[in-house]
Parts: sequence; C-alpha cells; structure tokens
Amino acid sequence: MTKMNKPRPISGFPEWTPPQRMIEQRFLDKIKDVFELYGYAPLETRAVEPLDQLLRKGETSKEVYVLRRLQEEAGSASEDALGLHFDLTVPFARYVLENSGKLQFPFRRYQIQKVWRGERPQEGRYREFRQADIDVVDRDTLPPHYEAEMPLVIGDALSALPIPKVTIQVNNRKVCEGYYRGLGVGDPEAALRAVDKLDKIGPARVGELLVQTAGATEAQAKAVLALAEISAPDASFADAVRALGVSDPLLDEGLAELVDVVETAAAYAPGLCVADLKIARGLDYYTGTVYETQLAGFERFGSICSGGRYDNLATSGNERFPGVGISLGVSRLLGLLFGGGRLAISREVPTCVLVALDAERRGIPFVWFPGEPDSVKDIRSGDQVDADPATWTPPAEDLYPAVSAS
Amino acid sequence: MTKMNKPRPISGFPEWTPPQRMIEQRFLDKIKDVFELYGYAPLETRAVEPLDQLLRKGETSKEVYVLRRLQEEAGSASEDALGLHFDLTVPFARYVLENSGKLQFPFRRYQIQKVWRGERPQEGRYREFRQADIDVVDRDTLPPHYEAEMPLVIGDALSALPIPKVTIQVNNRKVCEGYYRGLGVGDPEAALRAVDKLDKIGPARVGELLVQTAGATEAQAKAVLALAEISAPDASFADAVRALGVSDPLLDEGLAELVDVVETAAAYAPGLCVADLKIARGLDYYTGTVYETQLAGFERFGSICSGGRYDNLATSGNERFPGVGISLGVSRLLGLLFGGGRLAISREVPTCVLVALDAERRGIPFVWFPGEPDSVKDIRSGDQVDADPATWTPPAEDLYPAVSAS
Repeated sequence: MTKMNKPRPISGFPEWTPPQRMIEQRFLDKIKDVFELYGYAPLETRAVEPLDQLLRKGETSKEVYVLRRLQEEAGSASEDALGLHFDLTVPFARYVLENSGKLQFPFRRYQIQKVWRGERPQEGRYREFRQADIDVVDRDTLPPHYEAEMPLVIGDALSALPIPKVTIQVNNRKVCEGYYRGLGVGDPEAALRAVDKLDKIGPARVGELLVQTAGATEAQAKAVLALAEISAPDASFADAVRALGVSDPLLDEGLAELVDVVETAAAYAPGLCVADLKIARGLDYYTGTVYETQLAGFERFGSICSGGRYDNLATSGNERFPGVGISLGVSRLLGLLFGGGRLAISREVPTCVLVALDAERRGIPFVWFPGEPDSVKDIRSGDQVDADPATWTPPAEDLYPAVSAS
Repeated sequence: MTKMNKPRPISGFPEWTPPQRMIEQRFLDKIKDVFELYGYAPLETRAVEPLDQLLRKGETSKEVYVLRRLQEEAGSASEDALGLHFDLTVPFARYVLENSGKLQFPFRRYQIQKVWRGERPQEGRYREFRQADIDVVDRDTLPPHYEAEMPLVIGDALSALPIPKVTIQVNNRKVCEGYYRGLGVGDPEAALRAVDKLDKIGPARVGELLVQTAGATEAQAKAVLALAEISAPDASFADAVRALGVSDPLLDEGLAELVDVVETAAAYAPGLCVADLKIARGLDYYTGTVYETQLAGFERFGSICSGGRYDNLATSGNERFPGVGISLGVSRLLGLLFGGGRLAISREVPTCVLVALDAERRGIPFVWFPGEPDSVKDIRSGDQVDADPATWTPPAEDLYPAVSAS
C-alpha cells in the first residue's frame, strides 16, 4: 500500500468536526420530531435517478453529477445513465408515481438527505449538502390549505432551534404570470426568470433583461419591477397590486390564494411570513405558492428554506398528483452559523457517565467508580457521592449535550 | 415539461416503504444510542473521495462509481477525479490524517452513512446501501484490548434489536500469514485471497487455487485448508492450531491476540463470538484481528457485520494512526429481514395523537376532540374519555411505533 500525502479538504464538500456533527444531530432530531408531530411519514429515496429524469427541467442540467462505474466499457449502452439527485422533490415525485398503488393519499412525507449540485462553491453554497423536506401530495386535486401549512410547520421546527429569527417570504406564481399576461409581456416565463435575478443583479439590469429576453417594452419592464417591489406582512399587499391597475383572471386567482396563505400564517404564527412579490424561485416546476426564507443577519447568503406548489411534477399517463413542499437547507443553515461562531454545545462527547476503568475522560461530566459502595463524581463541581447503580441516573439536563446560541 | 412514463425501480438501489423506513429509523436510533453510550462520537464524511485515494487498495477498483459534472469538458484536467466512497473506513482514515491536529486520541467515532459499490446486485447485496461503523484509532500504537471491544459493542447494539441470533466469527491475519509462512507457502497474500473464497467455491477449488496462484504444493494446500477448518467458541482453537505442527513467531503472536479476543468476549457476552480460522476478509488493509457476522437463518447471504484491525491505513509521512473497526450492514440486515417478512411495526404513521379537525386518520392511535371539555378517543378500543390538554399524555408504549419480530 502506498502512503498517503496529508489530505486536504475538497472545496464545496464540507465536513463538520465531531462537536459540530453533534449539533447537527440535535438539530435534525428536533426537526424530525416536529415533522412527525404533524403527521409526516419518513421516507428516503436512493441517491441516484435516471439522468433523463433529472434533466426534465432544463435549467438545472449544468448542476448534475453523472455516475459511471470505473470498469464500465466506454460508450456502453448496457445500463441507463444515472446521476446524483440535486434536490428531494424530483425523486419524491418519481417515488409517488412508482408507488402510487401502495400509498394513502393525501400522502405527507418528510425526507432528510444529502443532495449534490456541481455549482461553484461559495460560503453557504455547497456541492454536497443536506436538505430536510416536507411535502404533501394528493391524487387529482390538492386543497389549497396545505399551502398555508408548509410555512407553519417549518416555522415550528425552526423556532425549536437556537438560531436567529427567520422570515418566510411568500409569493404565488399565478400572481406574477397573471400580471405579466394582463400587462401584455411577450414571454411571461422569461420575465419570471429575469425577476428571479433581482437580488443578484439589481433592478436596472433586470429591467434590461426584461426588454432583451422577455419581449417587454420599457413601460412593461417598469410595471414588472413595480410588482416586484411590493411586500407586506398582511393582506394589504393585494391592494397595492390592484393599485397598479392590471387585471387578469389568473392574477385574481393568485391574489386570493396568496391572501389566504398570508392571513392563515398571521393568525397562527404572527411575524413569521410576509408576502414578497419579488420571490420567483429558479426551478420551473412550481405552479402556485412559492416560498423563500431569510435568516436575520445572513440575508446576503440567500434563502435557507424554499419551496412551493407543483401541480404537474408527478404526472404519468392519466395519473396526476399535485403537491406542495418546502425544503430546509440544513447544511447552509449550519455552515453559516458555524462560520459566524453562533452555536455552542455543552460538551464534546455524547457520553454522560464514564465508568472509571482507565483514564480516558474527554469532557464526560460524570465518572462512576465501581466499589463497595459504588460512587459517582461530578467532574465539574468535584462532588463525589455514594450511589446505587440500580437507581442513580444523571440529571435530565446532563443526559444529552445541549446546543445553545453563542 | 414532458410527462413521465411510470417509473420502475433500479436494480441494486433499494427504497423502503414509509413503514419500513420507520423500522429502519428505530433500528438506527437504538444502534446510535449504544454507540454513544460507549463513548463513540458522531462523525459524517462527505460522500466523495479523490479517485486515487479510493484506488489505493487495488482489489476494489472495479466497484467504484466515478463522478463527472454533466457540463464538464471531456478530458478536462481542471478538477481531480472524484468517486463515491465504497466503505466508511477509507474516508475515516483520510479524515483522521486531515484533522489529526484537532482530534483527541484515542479517537472513537461512529459513522452511519450510505456507501456505493458497482457490484452485481443480489438479494441482500446492493449498489447503494447504509453502513453503521465504529472505529477507534490512536496515535503511533493502539492497545490490543480495543480488538475485543468491537464485537462487544456491536453485540450490545444488535441485542437491542428484534432480530435472529447473531454469531461474530473472529480470526487474526497474523495467524494465517504466520502459519502460511511457517508452512513455506510461496505467496501468503494470494493464499489468503484463495481462502477468502471458501464459502463461495468450496475447499476443492480453493485447494486448486492455492496451488495455481499461491505457489503451494499439494501438501501445503491441504495444510492451509486444515487451518481453515478450525473453529471453536473458546481458546481451545489454539490447541487445534498447534496440533497442526507449524511454528512461526507471527503465528504465535496472532494466536495470543486471538485467544485474548475470544476469552474477553466469552466473559462478557457468552455465545456471541467464535474463533473461526477460515475468516479472511477481502479488503487488504487489515493487519490483525478480523470479524465477520452470521445472522441465524440467513447465513447463505454472507456477513452482516465485518471489520478488523488496520495498522497502516491512516499513515502519512511519519504520522501513523493504527485503528480497529467494525461495520454493520444496515441495509443488508433490513433487506434480508424485510424479504423474509420478519419485522412488523405497530402502526404505519409516526404520529401518536390526531387533533380531529378533518377526517384524515391513517392508523394514528388516539384522536383528540377539542370541546368543552376536550376529549380523547382510543380508536383501537373505542374508549372515549374527557381529558385536559395541559396534563394528558399518551401511554408510554404508544408514544412511538414499536418494532417487533414477526
């Protein structure tokens, strides 16, 4: 065997230290508990999908990692090409179609897994990262109240974690598309893609893009940007939209749906959601409500939790399973908080009690000394007391390492 | 967006149903609890390693999946080639070298992750599967008592699960290599690889292989097979080896180590371990004790839990971290038990109490009716009683779905 050179990290493929991994596990346990409390069943799909399946949505093709077996003959057609999944929604839609006969609808599932994207790595943006998703799909039609449920469940999960305040920004594709249509913009989808770049390139350049790629006039581009500027924590956003004077049936439908989501959220979790009409989402499978989430103090790193409603993703022949879901970027959230020194853990080992047979200690809070009688020592206070192994238990607050904001 | 044809499973990439995934989660929770109780810290490494790193051990090159970004130029040398890891030991050794300055030694970690191998799929043998590993590494030298600890920890974890009896088969590479050397076999490593095929091809063909590939005479081949036949639940195996009349210092060293492991295991977990001198392990990084594990009734599907001691895997320049570890094949274990209809779960949703706002029920055992006063109904017995939401809790045995053998 050849000796190894000292290995170095691979950009975009983060690895946590053991204490950071303990923090991640506590986060995942809490997220999972909230998801299960709301009746979401656990699901895990394989890491790979057929490549043609992953490429159904043109925009993401550049991000896909393709697999090949090292010993596979070049150009061999014996196996269909496989790629690593880049999100958990496309695999979930495929799973629902494949297993529709065995599932009970509406089907609520959560899924916590790694995904891979070949994007240029940046702070909080990785090539391998973990997402925690919830989705609800139903057969044929999906009642709109699920679109209000998504941010409420995620809000509950996030409020159980020692992290800065989050704000979920909600929009509805129908509002944008109906408005663009009512306005007479030539290519509404291109307009949406241009608006999606607002945070990155600013309104002036988005205005140019709208003219160049979406067939908009200068006046139309200005009107599109006016819509994107509207934001409100309550239903007042709808009045602001109507004041722009554009009318279209799809716009009305989208406004009604968005008012419902914002008002339901305001009733159950005041301050959690805002209507923000610039939110577009890059993935083209969304057909209604869309979500993004800002973490206070980390807004410039982008959304930590995104999703939306998709009516046509899980469709095969005459089977149709509309769905809505939201995806928490666990690695991005942790990466940003670790990077900012914002999380601490009460000890660096999971163990609570060490039975003293040798000198290994490593921050374990209690040491048990077998004897006649046995005794147990709190290494932090130095207190040592006789104890009966049949009845003694550590204080509840020491049983597991505790994560706190720091 | 194009519509999807009804998708079909991909051979070798298993996916569980939601109830099966709930069983897997219960298994993982219990395994994790036992690992943490013994002081193993959690670790997760990225799914990819540099390809040259994965190919350091020649024998496994055929199993590696290589990655490429779809938009990467063919033949581009701008990025080092990456492959998916095929086990968790090689990434762990790399992690230890990379982070040796930040770790406390002896370093005990557990790691529960998916791995990928491009092998031909069979029942219980997958291309994507989950392993649960524990390892201990130390700087420069590693005391031999850790070689007895591995099967004891795994035995504790497995005894917490509703599965058939397991038997851990233990051997020591030094016994085999010393014996082959004492015997005068030309190529001891080739001999070990031939013996590793015993269960697959039987003694007659292994005998031929020994002559053809390891430079053994007929008499030497017979003596090699005689060693492989020895098996005992206690130290008596050492007398049987000595009765074969071969002597070599490495053989003596290996026998002493193996006696220690078997006697320690017999003292703490009678019936768990046997010395079985045919166990060789395919991976060539093992240098001492090796383990395989049989699941009663499923022996023909191969080991469900394997590992061993490796003195040279984590070595760079003049840094050296000998280690020992064992890896539980979670997917293989579950796949075999699911396939045999051997596991059941008490309900098919994680939720314990449904608050009755709509008719969705799906096997949730309790339904809560808000009212004046509130009441709660056990849907299994039909009993409905008034209850105070501030104090009522479900019976402990209903709080989580319970897994049982079936």
